[in-house]
Amino acid sequence: MNGYQHLFIPGPTNVPEPVRQAMNLPMEDMRAPDFPGFVTGLLTDLKKAYRMETGRVFVFPSSGTGAWESAIQNTLQPGDKVLMSRFGQFSLLWVDMAERLGLDVELCEVDWGKGVPLDDYARILAADTDHKIKAVFATQNETATGVTSDIAGVRAALDACDHPAMLFVDGVSSIASIEFEMEKWGVDLAVSGSQKGFMLPAGLGILGVSEKALEANKALAGSGMARCYFSFEDMIKLNDTGYFPYTPATQLLRGLRCSLDMLLETGMESVWARHHRLAGGVRAAVAAWDGCELVAHGPEWASDTVSAIYVPQGVDARDVISGAYYKYQTSLGTGLNKLMGKAFRIGHLGSLNPVMLCGAISAAEMALVDAGAQIVPGSGVAAAQAHFRDTTPATVAAPAKAA
Amino acid sequence: MNGYQHLFIPGPTNVPEPVRQAMNLPMEDMRAPDFPGFVTGLLTDLKKAYRMETGRVFVFPSSGTGAWESAIQNTLQPGDKVLMSRFGQFSLLWVDMAERLGLDVELCEVDWGKGVPLDDYARILAADTDHKIKAVFATQNETATGVTSDIAGVRAALDACDHPAMLFVDGVSSIASIEFEMEKWGVDLAVSGSQKGFMLPAGLGILGVSEKALEANKALAGSGMARCYFSFEDMIKLNDTGYFPYTPATQLLRGLRCSLDMLLETGMESVWARHHRLAGGVRAAVAAWDGCELVAHGPEWASDTVSAIYVPQGVDARDVISGAYYKYQTSLGTGLNKLMGKAFRIGHLGSLNPVMLCGAISAAEMALVDAGAQIVPGSGVAAAQAHFRDTTPATVAAPAKAA
Amino acid sequence: MNGYQHLFIPGPTNVPEPVRQAMNLPMEDMRAPDFPGFVTGLLTDLKKAYRMETGRVFVFPSSGTGAWESAIQNTLQPGDKVLMSRFGQFSLLWVDMAERLGLDVELCEVDWGKGVPLDDYARILAADTDHKIKAVFATQNETATGVTSDIAGVRAALDACDHPAMLFVDGVSSIASIEFEMEKWGVDLAVSGSQKGFMLPAGLGILGVSEKALEANKALAGSGMARCYFSFEDMIKLNDTGYFPYTPATQLLRGLRCSLDMLLETGMESVWARHHRLAGGVRAAVAAWDGCELVAHGPEWASDTVSAIYVPQGVDARDVISGAYYKYQTSLGTGLNKLMGKAFRIGHLGSLNPVMLCGAISAAEMALVDAGAQIVPGSGVAAAQAHFRDTTPATVAAPAKAA
Amino acid sequence: MNGYQHLFIPGPTNVPEPVRQAMNLPMEDMRAPDFPGFVTGLLTDLKKAYRMETGRVFVFPSSGTGAWESAIQNTLQPGDKVLMSRFGQFSLLWVDMAERLGLDVELCEVDWGKGVPLDDYARILAADTDHKIKAVFATQNETATGVTSDIAGVRAALDACDHPAMLFVDGVSSIASIEFEMEKWGVDLAVSGSQKGFMLPAGLGILGVSEKALEANKALAGSGMARCYFSFEDMIKLNDTGYFPYTPATQLLRGLRCSLDMLLETGMESVWARHHRLAGGVRAAVAAWDGCELVAHGPEWASDTVSAIYVPQGVDARDVISGAYYKYQTSLGTGLNKLMGKAFRIGHLGSLNPVMLCGAISAAEMALVDAGAQIVPGSGVAAAQAHFRDTTPATVAAPAKAA
Repeated sequence: MNGYQHLFIPGPTNVPEPVRQAMNLPMEDMRAPDFPGFVTGLLTDLKKAYRMETGRVFVFPSSGTGAWESAIQNTLQPGDKVLMSRFGQFSLLWVDMAERLGLDVELCEVDWGKGVPLDDYARILAADTDHKIKAVFATQNETATGVTSDIAGVRAALDACDHPAMLFVDGVSSIASIEFEMEKWGVDLAVSGSQKGFMLPAGLGILGVSEKALEANKALAGSGMARCYFSFEDMIKLNDTGYFPYTPATQLLRGLRCSLDMLLETGMESVWARHHRLAGGVRAAVAAWDGCELVAHGPEWASDTVSAIYVPQGVDARDVISGAYYKYQTSLGTGLNKLMGKAFRIGHLGSLNPVMLCGAISAAEMALVDAGAQIVPGSGVAAAQAHFRDTTPATVAAPAKAA
Repeated sequence: MNGYQHLFIPGPTNVPEPVRQAMNLPMEDMRAPDFPGFVTGLLTDLKKAYRMETGRVFVFPSSGTGAWESAIQNTLQPGDKVLMSRFGQFSLLWVDMAERLGLDVELCEVDWGKGVPLDDYARILAADTDHKIKAVFATQNETATGVTSDIAGVRAALDACDHPAMLFVDGVSSIASIEFEMEKWGVDLAVSGSQKGFMLPAGLGILGVSEKALEANKALAGSGMARCYFSFEDMIKLNDTGYFPYTPATQLLRGLRCSLDMLLETGMESVWARHHRLAGGVRAAVAAWDGCELVAHGPEWASDTVSAIYVPQGVDARDVISGAYYKYQTSLGTGLNKLMGKAFRIGHLGSLNPVMLCGAISAAEMALVDAGAQIVPGSGVAAAQAHFRDTTPATVAAPAKAA
Repeated sequence: MNGYQHLFIPGPTNVPEPVRQAMNLPMEDMRAPDFPGFVTGLLTDLKKAYRMETGRVFVFPSSGTGAWESAIQNTLQPGDKVLMSRFGQFSLLWVDMAERLGLDVELCEVDWGKGVPLDDYARILAADTDHKIKAVFATQNETATGVTSDIAGVRAALDACDHPAMLFVDGVSSIASIEFEMEKWGVDLAVSGSQKGFMLPAGLGILGVSEKALEANKALAGSGMARCYFSFEDMIKLNDTGYFPYTPATQLLRGLRCSLDMLLETGMESVWARHHRLAGGVRAAVAAWDGCELVAHGPEWASDTVSAIYVPQGVDARDVISGAYYKYQTSLGTGLNKLMGKAFRIGHLGSLNPVMLCGAISAAEMALVDAGAQIVPGSGVAAAQAHFRDTTPATVAAPAKAA
Repeated sequence: MNGYQHLFIPGPTNVPEPVRQAMNLPMEDMRAPDFPGFVTGLLTDLKKAYRMETGRVFVFPSSGTGAWESAIQNTLQPGDKVLMSRFGQFSLLWVDMAERLGLDVELCEVDWGKGVPLDDYARILAADTDHKIKAVFATQNETATGVTSDIAGVRAALDACDHPAMLFVDGVSSIASIEFEMEKWGVDLAVSGSQKGFMLPAGLGILGVSEKALEANKALAGSGMARCYFSFEDMIKLNDTGYFPYTPATQLLRGLRCSLDMLLETGMESVWARHHRLAGGVRAAVAAWDGCELVAHGPEWASDTVSAIYVPQGVDARDVISGAYYKYQTSLGTGLNKLMGKAFRIGHLGSLNPVMLCGAISAAEMALVDAGAQIVPGSGVAAAQAHFRDTTPATVAAPAKAA
């Protein structure tokens, strides 16, 4: 009766109505004779969203974390050396996983607010003349800090020294939202999840795998890390028949069919452009707020899917988040780890629009003022409005009724 | 994929999640042996929302217009004299219906922006010493102009001269939203619909009927205006057994059970207070917009469920509405009849909250500026924010998850 | 947790999954600039289901009873003579309405179990040489007795004597289920509702109107019976712009769009054939039950949408219905009026299939035996199975997933 | 438009309406300040369904297979000796996983149709005087053969020789359906999934863990098998705060809250009794079919959640399954592995009722006859009807509307 609960975290994102409708369904037989047709079409079309023509996409009933684990288990061996960088809570957790799974991590520590250090990567790779480094990891979008890294740049660093290492990308909060080119960028393993750009509930870990990574898996010949649930071999065997090695999450798969149709019909470039436009509104608001600034160190790092925002000195970001939630029915993202209390986040990916963001910015403004920030109320919304007005598409299509 | 389509018209209103869930159901047998228990409980509880302990509430598969027709058909005769007033599109349509159904209408014309003229009513009723006037009609909330009339005042005018006329109230956009007291105010026939304060899809005409009006119906003894579908007699006969004279709209009835539970659990006074708070935010925004003003002639007339807003000179309100719809995915209410082009409306009733209204106000601001209005962007949102911050309930309950 | 509640009444019928999904939606603006496109397409396509190329279809927020009332109010005058026949609860109620609305009814009483008496109609019409009879009424499918009448035969009777009377058809439980040809049969007013062959919740009264009936309405020039809510004039005026004279039941309209798409894509002939096949299974079961028989007097009257079934002597049909409901979670139709206690009904229209009917027949068998009937358990199911096996379409398409 | 697609596989099972309604929801913030209250209540109540007062239940976004993997990874070490038995496709897969994860499996091969060999287990455990066997595995319900094993008997075998091995139970198709007593039977790790007795879509792996198993996990002190996604340590750390180590599948958790409420309100004993009654109907039908028999070797092995049924000699079970699917819109379970072509399965767990099963049995009968079986059509349904009539609860409660 009190209206929408506003959701502006960087995932789960808002589910579009057609997807919600598609998931309102009775259960079905995942061994039905016509199920393979559905599965095969879905996996094929997922490759389009990943921008790949060769290789495979796997879909696990799991979170994105499961897809991380699968990527490592199936292509690397304990003791393998890998190059990683850490600049936020999620890149930190990925390093932690790599170490727990027995990898030998060469780690670049980076200030939170920046992303993958291309120069360091280039230097280290060039120095690795005997190719001990088996894989290079890059978090494309660090969800904790709102920082986007240059994956094409990582590829360039690899190519510059003809390094054969595989390229692992965490694209959980980037794929299907901002530019991502699996094949053009030579990405070998790309992790995503259902609850971000794919605009679904959480529950699917999605993993793009290049031909090269598939070869790496084959080369293990079943040895390497122990694996069953996340095994490529099992998944390949069954996917090739149109089925899964265990009961798939059919409700989410039907939802994915719908969201994928929406994405592909719109066109990925257009999806990326939409996220860029929306992000601009939030960034305009932040710029208008006295004493606030992005955690991202400059526009070259600022993410189009999530903004992490430092609150003014003397303000506790937790009060902003708690006030927004309890007083204004709005979920903002928390400041994770070393950002706790210092920053809050606005997720701006998935199914949303300028007026929703004006609401989110208003909620943040009210909560900031309540928490003691000396910002000018309405200043952020005004700046966002100006941005949205300036960037209105020339020809605005009639709004799709149920979208 | 483009987020919510924002709905800020004065009905249909936004459906709360629990109600939407309750209506996601298979069909049922409306002659099942346990259906009467459901129906009887529902009709009983509807009386609580109407604030009546005696009399009845009827629920028709129809719009509110059908309930208007039922009220007249069942208690008046062709040629009966009735007192009405006209000050907006909906009071106008009600007069039109009364005349087409053969009533002899004594009509008070009132400037659009004001409501029921109590002095005129008092004068006319006092002069009607032989009680030719059989019914007095009052539109509690004129949805077209955002004007609320004083129903207790109409009752006082009747009582002042001991006039026995029945009191008809159009409460379509007021009942279950703003103060309405069927019994305390001596209302005899009160019309509502499902798609406003009851927060349901359109499809139910709801009619509160006092004991006095039931007596008037009985006195007709089946004569008077021809009626079947909207007949009180048929409805009473079947409702007394817990059924309906024809197939009821069970999906909406199940939804109504849910929304009624929400309303009664919250308490009607609290529902009214919530609408007053929300309306204040919109009025603050309008006050901040240069050249805009409410159609309502002063705060005593301003409605808590809908605001009709004059756009500045030289601006066409249709451009505002069209721009909001096509560019900002926001439905604002049109200016009806003589307000066309001059005013737009923001509906602020039903299931909504301050952040939603900040979004609506932002959409209106952007569309106003696009249409040439010289308002300060963000000024309305800032004023609304200040209002909402000042009026935040002292103890904010944790947000109900699915509400 | 106890599985489906089985619904085998002759409406509301089971809602197909795509329709249920389509109705799981937020509210929308019924005055939006792109709403007319939707409305116009819907009304145009409804004519295809009615099999008419000229004339109009009106959709009222009401039950089918409202559409009955509209048909009469808008084309006839009090005192007009009409020819009707009565052979079940619904034809009985229609006569009652006609009389209450002031028509002069020439009534043919017919045994319950038969339908429209063509010979009597022919005789009466031939004798009416000065054409005092303004309209002939025919209930195509008497839902209470499971009897289908010959509408083409009524047309033939009219044509045989060149009688100009309008032809009114109650098609509530026939249109969109069994053969109905508005234009070919020269029907002038044809009433239907959303909750039968259109497979939606109750809440829409649907009325097909021929050019001739529209002329009759025009000829009234606004005089005749008082009408507002169900007025053709108001509806035509607004429908011509793509809108409605009052808030339409948009949720049901969106559902109707979906069900209509399903019907037209399948093809009406195929829809009719499917109902004929399903009905055959029920009739085979009844034939196998000792002591039971159809209320319909022979195969020429038996309906393809509902079977009314006499229980054996000494058995109370109310026990069968109550037992099916409470013990076997199955809603069967009651015996109405003079059939109370003597017969129960199985609705077999809308979205259903042979296995559902085998369940329904099983429920009826168990309830019959519990109530003391000496039938052979399983005999009905076996007979139905044989029928369904014999009539399986040669090429069975893969089942549509969400249908 | 063709009615329900009938689902009679042993999972995913039919979702009850209230659960479906509960899952029709917008996304929510899994880091919201009031989310822990929800999570803690859910995990606590899951223990009631598992019948445990100490220990923990973990919920992973995964299938049941993932919970299998978690159980092994977190409590055993590569090279550990375990006792297992193999008598169907799922016990076979579990053995395969154990071997791939590096366990040293002592394997009892058992005829398909029987279950855990208590005598063999007793003998082997008694002989293992130096307690090399670290864990004993038992598939409580072999979904492929419809065989239920005696878990209390396995416990007795362990106790008889005071053997300290942990007891692992695969309860995927038994927990929340048939008797399961985690604590009374001394089960240490019990695997389940959302899509069986919990009546939800697939997507949650559920794992009950005893105090003893938690100690075993602690004793590993982070060593042992590599694990992250399915790590007990990570899950415990976050669950203790009411959160999860990664984004949980909130939609399914909300659904689980609803289904768990239904289960606990009904009472587990009553849930088990209901499954026993329903299974009896299917077994009666099989007994009535000439040439068919259960795969289970006698009533002591027959499962109350799924029946695997040998088709008569000369009939190909694949034709039965395919015919049921394509001609009768009914999903039956396939014969897996060595049962392929020889048997089909009817799942009878979760949300269903006698009339649904009469439909399923009818579908099977028609498909059997079509495939050449010489059974008497209707014989199975008649036998099932007799069973259901004989076992109707004395006092039948009114059917819950939305259940």
